[in-house]
Amino acid sequence: MSLQIGFGSRVRKSPFHEAVVRRGATHMTVYNHMLMPSSFGDPEEEYRALVERVSLWDVAAERQVEIVGPDAAALCQYVSARDLGGMKVGRVRYAPMCNHEGVLINDPMALKLGEDRWWLSIADSDVLLWCKAVAAERDFDCMIFEPDVSPLGVQGPKADDTIADLLGEWVRDLPFFAFVEVEHEGIPFVLCRSGWSGQGGYELFLQDGSKGVDLWEAVWAVGEKYGIHPGGPTLNERIESDLFSYRADCGADASPLEVGLGRFLSLDRDDLFIGKSALLSEERRGPARRLVKALLPGERFSATSESPWPAVGPDGQWCGEVRVAVWSPKHESNLCLALVSTEVAGGAFVTETPAGEKLQALHLGYFAE
Amino acid sequence: MSLQIGFGSRVRKSPFHEAVVRRGATHMTVYNHMLMPSSFGDPEEEYRALVERVSLWDVAAERQVEIVGPDAAALCQYVSARDLGGMKVGRVRYAPMCNHEGVLINDPMALKLGEDRWWLSIADSDVLLWCKAVAAERDFDCMIFEPDVSPLGVQGPKADDTIADLLGEWVRDLPFFAFVEVEHEGIPFVLCRSGWSGQGGYELFLQDGSKGVDLWEAVWAVGEKYGIHPGGPTLNERIESDLFSYRADCGADASPLEVGLGRFLSLDRDDLFIGKSALLSEERRGPARRLVKALLPGERFSATSESPWPAVGPDGQWCGEVRVAVWSPKHESNLCLALVSTEVAGGAFVTETPAGEKLQALHLGYFAE
Repeated sequence: MSLQIGFGSRVRKSPFHEAVVRRGATHMTVYNHMLMPSSFGDPEEEYRALVERVSLWDVAAERQVEIVGPDAAALCQYVSARDLGGMKVGRVRYAPMCNHEGVLINDPMALKLGEDRWWLSIADSDVLLWCKAVAAERDFDCMIFEPDVSPLGVQGPKADDTIADLLGEWVRDLPFFAFVEVEHEGIPFVLCRSGWSGQGGYELFLQDGSKGVDLWEAVWAVGEKYGIHPGGPTLNERIESDLFSYRADCGADASPLEVGLGRFLSLDRDDLFIGKSALLSEERRGPARRLVKALLPGERFSATSESPWPAVGPDGQWCGEVRVAVWSPKHESNLCLALVSTEVAGGAFVTETPAGEKLQALHLGYFAE
Repeated sequence: MSLQIGFGSRVRKSPFHEAVVRRGATHMTVYNHMLMPSSFGDPEEEYRALVERVSLWDVAAERQVEIVGPDAAALCQYVSARDLGGMKVGRVRYAPMCNHEGVLINDPMALKLGEDRWWLSIADSDVLLWCKAVAAERDFDCMIFEPDVSPLGVQGPKADDTIADLLGEWVRDLPFFAFVEVEHEGIPFVLCRSGWSGQGGYELFLQDGSKGVDLWEAVWAVGEKYGIHPGGPTLNERIESDLFSYRADCGADASPLEVGLGRFLSLDRDDLFIGKSALLSEERRGPARRLVKALLPGERFSATSESPWPAVGPDGQWCGEVRVAVWSPKHESNLCLALVSTEVAGGAFVTETPAGEKLQALHLGYFAE
C-alpha cells in the first residue's frame, strides 16, 4: 500500500531532515512526535551497507529527557527497573522503565553526564510527561526537560574507520556504552559507542539543532570511501541481533519479563522503584506470554510487510500475535517475532498472513536469550 | 514534497483503516501512535463537503483515557485546569490540562459516563502515562486504561440529517456536548454532539474495534443522498472556526493563556489542581506570547504548506513563528496562526516562507477571542 505522509507543524522535523531528503529518503515514520526516515527505497542495499560497510541514520527522534539537579540520580533510579547505582560519569546503561503495574512504558538508554545530570534516550512514548509527573508529585528536586539533542547513528563494520577519520584514532578506544563530549568544526556533540544495530558503531548526539546538516555532511564526506549509505533502524538486522523495539514488538501492554528484558532488570534491589512489587509477583508466577523468534516458510516477505498477524496454537486456539515479520538474509528465511502465550512459546504455532496464507512457524529461540 | 508513510506494528491502524483506504485516502499522519488519514487527495472538495454537506472522519486516533473508581472524579478534577464540578452524567466539557509549571500538555474533552467513570478524549500526547503517574503517586483509588473506543466524526450541515436517518429523529434534540450510549445493528457506540469543526455534527465513539468498517459503511450508506465525502480535521476550516490544535499551533511548551484558552480555565477554583500556582502567576504578569490569526498576501497556499515559518517584528527582530498557514475560502485570503511575543501581537509582523518570500501579516484577531 502506498500512502503519503502528511506534513504539518504538529510533527517536528529532525535537524537532519533536509539532508535525508536530499539523500533520497522515500519513507518516513513518526516517532516521539518527530519525522524519522525509515527507508531510502532499497531495503536490501540498506541491509548490505549496514552489515558490510557503514550506514548513516537520522535517529533524532530518539529524543532525550534531561534530568538535572540534586535529586536527578534518585529520580532516574526510581523510574528505572534497572539499578543505575555505581555508574561512572560518561557511561550508559540500558534501563527499561515500567509503570506501577509492572507494564513496560519505555526502554531508554540512561546516560550519566554528571553526578547530577542525566539523559534518558527514549523509545516512542512521552517519558517527559511521566518523569515530570513523578518528580512533581514526589517532590524530587530536579529540572526535567527535552534538550536540543539529536542523535545521528553511524553503524556498521566501517563505522570505526569513518569516525576515526572524522575525529582521530582515539575514538577506536572508546568502550561500548561509553561517551565523551566533543566539538568538531564548531559542531558540539556527544560521541557515544552505541546504536540500535548489532554491527557496532556510534551515536553522535548533536547538541545544536541548527547544525544538523553540517554534521550529516561531515560524516558523509569521511564515510564515502567506506561506501557509506543512508539508512535507519533496519528491521531484519535488528531482529537478527536481538534488539528490542518498544511498541512494535509488544504493543503497549507487555511486561519486560514477557519480552526477554529480564536480564536488564534489577528486581533484587533494596530500594523502591516503580513497578517493583508487580514485577516481583510476575517473576514468581512466571510471565503469561513470551516473545519468541521463529522462522516462517514461503515467499520472501518484504521489509514493509504489514503486521501484526494472528497466531494459532496446536490446539487451534488464538495464542497471540506475530508482531513483526521480514526476510532475514542471515537465516536465509523469513523471520518473525511473535508474542504468544507461555504454553505455546517454544513450540509450534501457525500464523495467517494478510493474503490469507497459513504458515507454520519454526521456533528459533526466546527473544534476547 | 512527496514521501510515503512507513507501515509497521509500532503504529496502530484504526478500526476504520480499511474503509478509509478503500475510499481513497492519499495522506496519513500519526497521532497518539495511530495512523490517521489527513487527506483524500482533494483538499478543496474536502472543505466544500464539510461546510456545505457532510464529511466522514476517521478520528479514532483521538484516543480515550478511561478513569473508573471511587476517586475517578477527583483525579479528573486534579489533572484538569478547568473545573469539572457540577457536570451531569452524559455531558462533556473541554478541559485543558497543564503540567505543574502551567505548560499545556493536552486539551481533552472530558466525558462524564457515570459518577465514577470518565473518558478524557485526548489530543496528541500520552495522557495515559501522565494520569497513571499522578494517580499512583498520589494514591487516587481508580483504574486508568485505554479502552477499545474509537471516534468516527460526522461533521457538516447535513450531519443531523445523516444521523437522524441512521438512528431516528430524536438525535436532533441532543444538545451540544451531550451524549448517549446507543446500539445500532449490533454496533455499540456513544453518540455525542461534538466534533473538531465549526460546522456542527456528531462523534460516534465506537465501542467495539472489530466493527469499525461496519459503522463507517452504515453512516456512509445513509449519508450518500446528502453528498457525504471522506475527510478529516480540515486545517483551514478549523482555523476559521477558532479550533485549537495542541502541538500544531504552539509546539510543546506553551501555556493555555498564551494560546487563547484562558476562558476554558477555572483559575479561581478553591481546590488544588496541577499547574494552579504557575497559571495564577502567569495570569497576574500576563502571558509572554500570544496566538494570533492573521491574513497573509500572495499566491494561494496549499493545504499542505510546510510550517512553521519565522516571524519578525517591526523592530526587525525575531518575534515568534507562523505555526500554520493555509488558504482560507471564508476570508478569500491566506490565513495563518502565529505564536508571537505579546509586544508584537495585535500589530504587524513579517514572515518568510520556505521559498524565501517575505510576507506582511495583517492582524485579524487574537485566536479564540
